[in-house]
Amino acid sequence: MLDLFPDSAAAPGGELAVGGVAASALAAEFGTPLLVYCEQTLRARARAYREAAPRARILYSVKAFPSVALLRLFAEEGLGAEVSALGELEFAERAGISGAQILVDGNNKSDEEISAAARAGAALVVDAFDDLDRAAAAGVSSLLVRVTPGVDAETHDAIRTGHTGSKFGLPPEDALAAIARGGIDGLHVHIGSQLLALGALRMTVDWLTAFMARARAELGWAPGTVDFGGGLGIRHVDGDPALPVDRFVGAIVDGLEQGCRLHGLPLPELILEPGRSLVGDGGVTLYRIGVVKRTGDATTYVAIDGGMSDNPRPQLYGAHFTGVLATRVVDPPAGTFTICGKHCESGDVLIDRLALPQPRRGDLLAVPATGAYTLGMSSNYNGVPRPAAVLVRAGEARLIRRRESLDDLLALEA
Amino acid sequence: MLDLFPDSAAAPGGELAVGGVAASALAAEFGTPLLVYCEQTLRARARAYREAAPRARILYSVKAFPSVALLRLFAEEGLGAEVSALGELEFAERAGISGAQILVDGNNKSDEEISAAARAGAALVVDAFDDLDRAAAAGVSSLLVRVTPGVDAETHDAIRTGHTGSKFGLPPEDALAAIARGGIDGLHVHIGSQLLALGALRMTVDWLTAFMARARAELGWAPGTVDFGGGLGIRHVDGDPALPVDRFVGAIVDGLEQGCRLHGLPLPELILEPGRSLVGDGGVTLYRIGVVKRTGDATTYVAIDGGMSDNPRPQLYGAHFTGVLATRVVDPPAGTFTICGKHCESGDVLIDRLALPQPRRGDLLAVPATGAYTLGMSSNYNGVPRPAAVLVRAGEARLIRRRESLDDLLALEA
Repeated sequence: MLDLFPDSAAAPGGELAVGGVAASALAAEFGTPLLVYCEQTLRARARAYREAAPRARILYSVKAFPSVALLRLFAEEGLGAEVSALGELEFAERAGISGAQILVDGNNKSDEEISAAARAGAALVVDAFDDLDRAAAAGVSSLLVRVTPGVDAETHDAIRTGHTGSKFGLPPEDALAAIARGGIDGLHVHIGSQLLALGALRMTVDWLTAFMARARAELGWAPGTVDFGGGLGIRHVDGDPALPVDRFVGAIVDGLEQGCRLHGLPLPELILEPGRSLVGDGGVTLYRIGVVKRTGDATTYVAIDGGMSDNPRPQLYGAHFTGVLATRVVDPPAGTFTICGKHCESGDVLIDRLALPQPRRGDLLAVPATGAYTLGMSSNYNGVPRPAAVLVRAGEARLIRRRESLDDLLALEA
Repeated sequence: MLDLFPDSAAAPGGELAVGGVAASALAAEFGTPLLVYCEQTLRARARAYREAAPRARILYSVKAFPSVALLRLFAEEGLGAEVSALGELEFAERAGISGAQILVDGNNKSDEEISAAARAGAALVVDAFDDLDRAAAAGVSSLLVRVTPGVDAETHDAIRTGHTGSKFGLPPEDALAAIARGGIDGLHVHIGSQLLALGALRMTVDWLTAFMARARAELGWAPGTVDFGGGLGIRHVDGDPALPVDRFVGAIVDGLEQGCRLHGLPLPELILEPGRSLVGDGGVTLYRIGVVKRTGDATTYVAIDGGMSDNPRPQLYGAHFTGVLATRVVDPPAGTFTICGKHCESGDVLIDRLALPQPRRGDLLAVPATGAYTLGMSSNYNGVPRPAAVLVRAGEARLIRRRESLDDLLALEA
């Protein structure tokens, strides 16, 4: 019932509790929609990465959910930050992450972003030739070059990134030319997001070690660091395959060691940039149900007090979610319902078909596996303020992001 | 060359100017990305609606771009506001729009939203049975019931709204039952957005007048008001068909008059809720070009300093846009380029294939027809601050929405 929910989820007396705090208590104190993050799950995922690759640098990919509180929590577990724009760097710096634990990525860095990376002492990923010149001029301390292997990952087109013709990285010939210019310390490769199979990943690791062998043969150069990006997916609905952190990381570590042995290369330092797999299944969204309405074609819509403004992933990626009535978790289903948001468009449907006990106005809907790429991609569409987020642990809840107010919505009006 | 740009657009000396202000001057003063709204175009579109239906109430659909400045400008032209959540109502009220000129819509209104509608003296669209009871309890002054005609509009699935099984409105039988309860003053129907053909619209008008005849026959009731929603599209790229305001509104006015004559019904007051067709082609986005990069499959990417955070319409709806190099408008094309954003995903492509003179770092790209559903749906994805917006007229530019700062991005952190 709750296996897609955070590790601490339970349903004593039929009501969902996360981190020992009942859903109804969370909604009463903090309002809805509410992002609830389970500290136990977040720490467990961070530790799983550290244990699977003890000598690797693990950098939280901030875009999955930019949060000072979560960055601090991950820093306590020994993680750093991967950032891709000035705003994300600001989150990392306010969380007290040191420059040595920050990597600046991105396909189109501004001069300001490159200077900020230099000032912070962060490493930088070269994604185009002119990054090289600008990084040298700004005095960036460490440079990786992102190379495009031409591997098609098994995922949504919008979040594949390793294929030939990607906007990211340099084709192999260009990457070699960049290395030949000097100043490059390592390699970066990332084939896509929400991966739940190892095929493309294994191919990428093999490809990269072969590329390393070629770089040594042609240029006498070997990387001190290789960064395999992120990419590990999470389960969103029953039936999604499970791919645990240790198997995913193990495939990279083993493949890299084998490849280096095969080609007689020194083993480089490893960097990983997990995002979704750190914060995705640690997060649950609580919504309050409003209108319940049967339509002409016998669909029954259950409308929630949020929607595509706080979770645009169904609209952007065709992402699927599931949910439970938070105060009647164990009740038998009364039918199949369509969960829609409150936004003024038909596409604002969060869950197409969901079996639930009969929903009523005022019920709470809990949607698991919503910790990543939800609040971080949220908008104010229809003038809807963005939700609050809390961190729960051992029966206590702490606000980590306050709810937007109507004044916030109008703050930019001149 | 500039026919998709605002009415005031010109290219003296080969540089784009809007409202008499050169693109490079706008970018220098206000930074990029920048939304530039042409006052002349906005007023012309508002007047086109007023002239095509002088006795109708024209309500600007705020979701297209919530802006106090634009709401004030439209109010000067005699327009009111259609809002669908508390935040949008707040924009309308801060702009000084009177309650009599406000309509509150939405498929899932909170109790707070219904109370606010009552307090404002705004009319309210009943979208579900329990809206009726709650509106009566709150003392809402005027009620319309939204009815679903079962018409399939020729548009994107996500923005069709009139079909059977839509989350909006009540099926005809239920709408009649709601009317029978008493207190309903009018009817509301809206079949979808971005319409560029009249077929579905004409069918809807005919259907509604037949429904009015049925309501009179069965209940002895005729609406004092009918609201046909919005829906008129705009041209985004060459080859899009043009559908001028007067033809669209004319089809509604004529169809309603004919239908009422046919069925011997009194002619109701007309409400229209244009959004995109008021602000869409009055808006141009200016981006600064950064990385220009050829990839392994011979695509040349031209990266801009924004992307899916300020305009998510390509990702959400498969929307197409075009653009020009703002300082070299009349130069011949040097090739075909892919315009991508600065966000960390491959799907962040604004324009798939665009013929341009050779783009260089620092060039300005101007993208027309971006005034609607862009900034209003914008996010802070990748920690990217949302753009500023200016209103231009007669050689002067006025800031109407300031650019977000890094402090704004972190303002919600607890």
